[in-house]
Amino acid sequence: MTLQKVIVRKIPRADPSVIAGLAEMGTATVHEAAGQTGLMSPAIRPLQNGAAIAGSAVTVLCPAGDNLILHASVEVLQPGDVLVIALTSPADHGAIGELLVTSFRAHGCVGLVAECGVRDHAEINALGFPVWGRVVHAQGTQKNLAGSVNVPIVCGGQAVAPGDVIVADNDGVCVIPRADAATVLAAARSRVEKEKSTRQHLQSGELGVDYYGFRQKIKDLGITYVDEAPREERG
Amino acid sequence: MTLQKVIVRKIPRADPSVIAGLAEMGTATVHEAAGQTGLMSPAIRPLQNGAAIAGSAVTVLCPAGDNLILHASVEVLQPGDVLVIALTSPADHGAIGELLVTSFRAHGCVGLVAECGVRDHAEINALGFPVWGRVVHAQGTQKNLAGSVNVPIVCGGQAVAPGDVIVADNDGVCVIPRADAATVLAAARSRVEKEKSTRQHLQSGELGVDYYGFRQKIKDLGITYVDEAPREERG
Amino acid sequence: MTLQKVIVRKIPRADPSVIAGLAEMGTATVHEAAGQTGLMSPAIRPLQNGAAIAGSAVTVLCPAGDNLILHASVEVLQPGDVLVIALTSPADHGAIGELLVTSFRAHGCVGLVAECGVRDHAEINALGFPVWGRVVHAQGTQKNLAGSVNVPIVCGGQAVAPGDVIVADNDGVCVIPRADAATVLAAARSRVEKEKSTRQHLQSGELGVDYYGFRQKIKDLGITYVDEAPREERG
Amino acid sequence: MTLQKVIVRKIPRADPSVIAGLAEMGTATVHEAAGQTGLMSPAIRPLQNGAAIAGSAVTVLCPAGDNLILHASVEVLQPGDVLVIALTSPADHGAIGELLVTSFRAHGCVGLVAECGVRDHAEINALGFPVWGRVVHAQGTQKNLAGSVNVPIVCGGQAVAPGDVIVADNDGVCVIPRADAATVLAAARSRVEKEKSTRQHLQSGELGVDYYGFRQKIKDLGITYVDEAPREERG
Amino acid sequence: MTLQKVIVRKIPRADPSVIAGLAEMGTATVHEAAGQTGLMSPAIRPLQNGAAIAGSAVTVLCPAGDNLILHASVEVLQPGDVLVIALTSPADHGAIGELLVTSFRAHGCVGLVAECGVRDHAEINALGFPVWGRVVHAQGTQKNLAGSVNVPIVCGGQAVAPGDVIVADNDGVCVIPRADAATVLAAARSRVEKEKSTRQHLQSGELGVDYYGFRQKIKDLGITYVDEAPREERG
Amino acid sequence: MTLQKVIVRKIPRADPSVIAGLAEMGTATVHEAAGQTGLMSPAIRPLQNGAAIAGSAVTVLCPAGDNLILHASVEVLQPGDVLVIALTSPADHGAIGELLVTSFRAHGCVGLVAECGVRDHAEINALGFPVWGRVVHAQGTQKNLAGSVNVPIVCGGQAVAPGDVIVADNDGVCVIPRADAATVLAAARSRVEKEKSTRQHLQSGELGVDYYGFRQKIKDLGITYVDEAPREERG
Repeated sequence: MTLQKVIVRKIPRADPSVIAGLAEMGTATVHEAAGQTGLMSPAIRPLQNGAAIAGSAVTVLCPAGDNLILHASVEVLQPGDVLVIALTSPADHGAIGELLVTSFRAHGCVGLVAECGVRDHAEINALGFPVWGRVVHAQGTQKNLAGSVNVPIVCGGQAVAPGDVIVADNDGVCVIPRADAATVLAAARSRVEKEKSTRQHLQSGELGVDYYGFRQKIKDLGITYVDEAPREERG
Repeated sequence: MTLQKVIVRKIPRADPSVIAGLAEMGTATVHEAAGQTGLMSPAIRPLQNGAAIAGSAVTVLCPAGDNLILHASVEVLQPGDVLVIALTSPADHGAIGELLVTSFRAHGCVGLVAECGVRDHAEINALGFPVWGRVVHAQGTQKNLAGSVNVPIVCGGQAVAPGDVIVADNDGVCVIPRADAATVLAAARSRVEKEKSTRQHLQSGELGVDYYGFRQKIKDLGITYVDEAPREERG
Repeated sequence: MTLQKVIVRKIPRADPSVIAGLAEMGTATVHEAAGQTGLMSPAIRPLQNGAAIAGSAVTVLCPAGDNLILHASVEVLQPGDVLVIALTSPADHGAIGELLVTSFRAHGCVGLVAECGVRDHAEINALGFPVWGRVVHAQGTQKNLAGSVNVPIVCGGQAVAPGDVIVADNDGVCVIPRADAATVLAAARSRVEKEKSTRQHLQSGELGVDYYGFRQKIKDLGITYVDEAPREERG
Repeated sequence: MTLQKVIVRKIPRADPSVIAGLAEMGTATVHEAAGQTGLMSPAIRPLQNGAAIAGSAVTVLCPAGDNLILHASVEVLQPGDVLVIALTSPADHGAIGELLVTSFRAHGCVGLVAECGVRDHAEINALGFPVWGRVVHAQGTQKNLAGSVNVPIVCGGQAVAPGDVIVADNDGVCVIPRADAATVLAAARSRVEKEKSTRQHLQSGELGVDYYGFRQKIKDLGITYVDEAPREERG
Repeated sequence: MTLQKVIVRKIPRADPSVIAGLAEMGTATVHEAAGQTGLMSPAIRPLQNGAAIAGSAVTVLCPAGDNLILHASVEVLQPGDVLVIALTSPADHGAIGELLVTSFRAHGCVGLVAECGVRDHAEINALGFPVWGRVVHAQGTQKNLAGSVNVPIVCGGQAVAPGDVIVADNDGVCVIPRADAATVLAAARSRVEKEKSTRQHLQSGELGVDYYGFRQKIKDLGITYVDEAPREERG
Repeated sequence: MTLQKVIVRKIPRADPSVIAGLAEMGTATVHEAAGQTGLMSPAIRPLQNGAAIAGSAVTVLCPAGDNLILHASVEVLQPGDVLVIALTSPADHGAIGELLVTSFRAHGCVGLVAECGVRDHAEINALGFPVWGRVVHAQGTQKNLAGSVNVPIVCGGQAVAPGDVIVADNDGVCVIPRADAATVLAAARSRVEKEKSTRQHLQSGELGVDYYGFRQKIKDLGITYVDEAPREERG
């Protein structure tokens, strides 16, 4: 109940080389490597095309319609961090604009994942700063209310703890608990390696049902092959 | 009731030259030429900018959260086909990814229309393979459940039969029954021809109400012209 | 009750130099300069990337599924106008297409803000004509029903009077009452000027909480700083 | 730009007998009698079953997430008024609860139409006080921000001026400009009278196409009658 | 392309006793008995509480914003029919009101499934006539456009042929092809019979995992039982 | 990554008298007493009218489209528990029906909060078993996939730990960490006590702005009172 009014200065972070490795893997592979866990809702979508990042989550719990706490969050950012913003209640206000982004970048922040609205979309794109969010909306905010920095939050339907690894690209945003990051990276790399060979087989025209060995499963499921469609007799 | 577990190998297809002609016409023109029928919901939107295709529908009825049947569908694809995917129940899982698309392309498939989610968005775009879908979502699927290939489905609110012609571009997706394809193409061409002349008149500044002859209709509907707005007296 | 069937030929317009000035300021700045008023819903989104315009509103009240009145609206357009279209009832029909846009452009219209659907998206983009709308949909319309031009409407949740100044860019659409346009422009310019200096401070890494002087407010709100997260004891 | 911070004490109101008459007519009839104008979006739905009211609009422009101005609005309420609440930006906070409703009722308010969220749903229902709104949500609000009372607003997609007549029932909410109220009531009564006779004819099994005389129109539109469905040949 | 303008007078219907049997079974059971097929989207929801019906589908393809064809559909209704209404394009207009319902009832229609909006909600409820629809909206319609009766349509995401059996209750709407109705009824009855015994076991506190024999499957899936939660170490 | 496949048998629970006290307070009061925290999204709405409960959360992480783990969850239920169900990915399948509810009740479960769909709505209502959920949908599920019981989940946008106290009524669902339950109850009771007196003052017609002492704040915010609306000069 008093959790909402604290700024935690120091958080644990994953190994930078692990984070860099996860960025290369991408959201879909990392999500699979993590046992199909951690994926945010597609409502949190990329507001640009082609960016792919990973970083340590600095979390913000921000009151709807106010962005004072976002200004306060800058002080705890470290190079390589990703700011992840939850709201106390859903609202579309453009709590993030180009000036805040300028400040985030000056402190090494590499990207933003936001439940709140974003404005100055063209300017932020011009800066090459990637954002994943729900909505672009120019609606102004106030600077009157308290929030918190680096507390556990829920964003895009996923629980995010400060220091979790955020992986984001065109396919959305995946959250990996810090303690699992290295293991997930290893699993992701093994998956990618395996897919290289698969890709070659499929490119050559080999059927996946043969390559993966699905013929028996298809049979067991009772799927039958027929040459022509049965004559339909509806109506 | 047993319809859900069949893979139909052979389907009738429209004349390739008719299909090529419809691709040139585009969705809006074809939809008008078909008597304003066949248009899917705008919820099925282009996941790239500028692609414009037409092809024969290979249909898939896919269980929510599973993509085994999509692997099985590859075997029946012919060059020029468009895969059209309906789900047994709405879900956002990314049932389609880059490896499946690699396989579809290797068998000549020219595009995808999907009720299910899509992942590996950047990679699929890089391959130049066009997709019309509801959502990009990295969520993983299973390979446990039976589905069907080349059965009648409903996708984007339209009934699609195997072999129907699918026309898709930035304006969405239109379904033309195979038997109507040639007639619709002729009507579309005639419409395009007529629009060329109209375009020239409108570009020169001629008013549509004059060119189309709407003056009388406007009068009949009781629309009046006034020079100044009547003074409003609300509040 | 008879308001729906009138075409008003002459409307007052703001000073062209003021309109040009507002276009440079952009939606977010203008909305702030107007006391955080006038912003349309983000449901009215840019259908292209990067366009930024301002112009005088020519308003249309258009019956759902019909576009006869849109053809009639061309006659009252002046160079620099923005057509703003409301519907009598929500519907997705593509009431606007490339031929209508050709006509709008031929009469000097610089952009479109529409509750109705839009089609010929690729062609309209190719013309470089910017549109803010809810949906791209190829669905055809009729030409049977009466509407009005240059009457007060509601579009994107904002009341729009003929001659209001419309400012639109990637951040959405803002409506400024004609009588306020010059005052808003002055306030916007002053805001932009101030932000230049702020930007330099923030780019250099100075903290916003120091630059803006938020330290005391943060303290007054009871936000506390701690070095480490308190150990969580849930579950 | 300074419009947002004013409380207007006195507003014109329609004749109470006209308002009472409109309440009897109901939303659908009044909307038709007003030339199919004035109907709010169905997103503003009844939060109870069966209530049917009419009253004079006292309008409130309320900042998202704050309800101070709602407390201030009570002072200007007169018996028979309906409070109509717009937000500066969409948000779901439960700005209205049972205590505020107690206050509204104590001053004669007969119902509420709200863009903001509502809480204490069961308690408000138990009081028999009817509400039309978007969402029931318990989320708390602040009391920090300025709003206005009795200024022109947009609610449910309709412009509402203070003193407009609000008609609301299971079918939604309709806004009638005060100056039109008597005329609309007369048209509504005439419509209801006519429907009585129609109802008797239809109840007896007479066909509407005969009673209304639609046979010729159906023929003119090219609709044909056939005894059996043509054999479909798709697929 | 000319399909949209026909009224088919005679359609095949399922055996009345089979239809009555399916009404008793309810939507969920019938949907399962049909191999988990035929269920409409939950967007088509009951507009009353507790009604449960079945009947033969008389289908209507209705132009958005117009209800002339609905008046024309009355002539082909037989006692026990359910009217199923699709739109040419999504729209919320209240195309159905109490007078039309009066006419439907006078001809024996037992319920309505509608993509279009419905108005006179309170009056229709008072008549005890059940409706499944997307939205209650008072918006008025025109009577200018052609539609069709008893052609194949898509409603709620399901293909519906004239004469299909419609089963509807609080759980939504299920469509059963006429030819399958008797088989589905038999399967449904067998399912209900089996559930009676299951219900007794479960009411007595017996565990479903034992009664259904799921213990081995749970083990095979690798689900483990632990007495206490492992200590979480996030953050 | 292996977290998804565990069933935790024993969880801590709050004091039953505290839980009973919170049930009496209701969602809105408890949410306020908890510092405006813990409230689920209004998308999780009551599927009945008037129920008000509190209980200890037994959490389930359930694979989309499958309900095997729900059967397995029954074994760990204790009298007074509330089952809280999250999905691995959003889907509408009716994973809960009357037979499962029969089993839940037989083991003392007092209510259900579910991200998944619910079916047998009428039957569950007839049993008097309260459910808060997103959607009623009859769509069938499979019994093939692994899930977990009593692991931390996110439901309705809130993190829920096993043993948290769930409070639910017409206003939605609020989650209170077990360790905070007694403190929140005390704060809630104090709030209710205070409101009793407030209610009496407001019922008597005393203005809230006087009773709460808002006059000065209104003045400080620059809100002005005027007798008549300023003449508007738009258009």
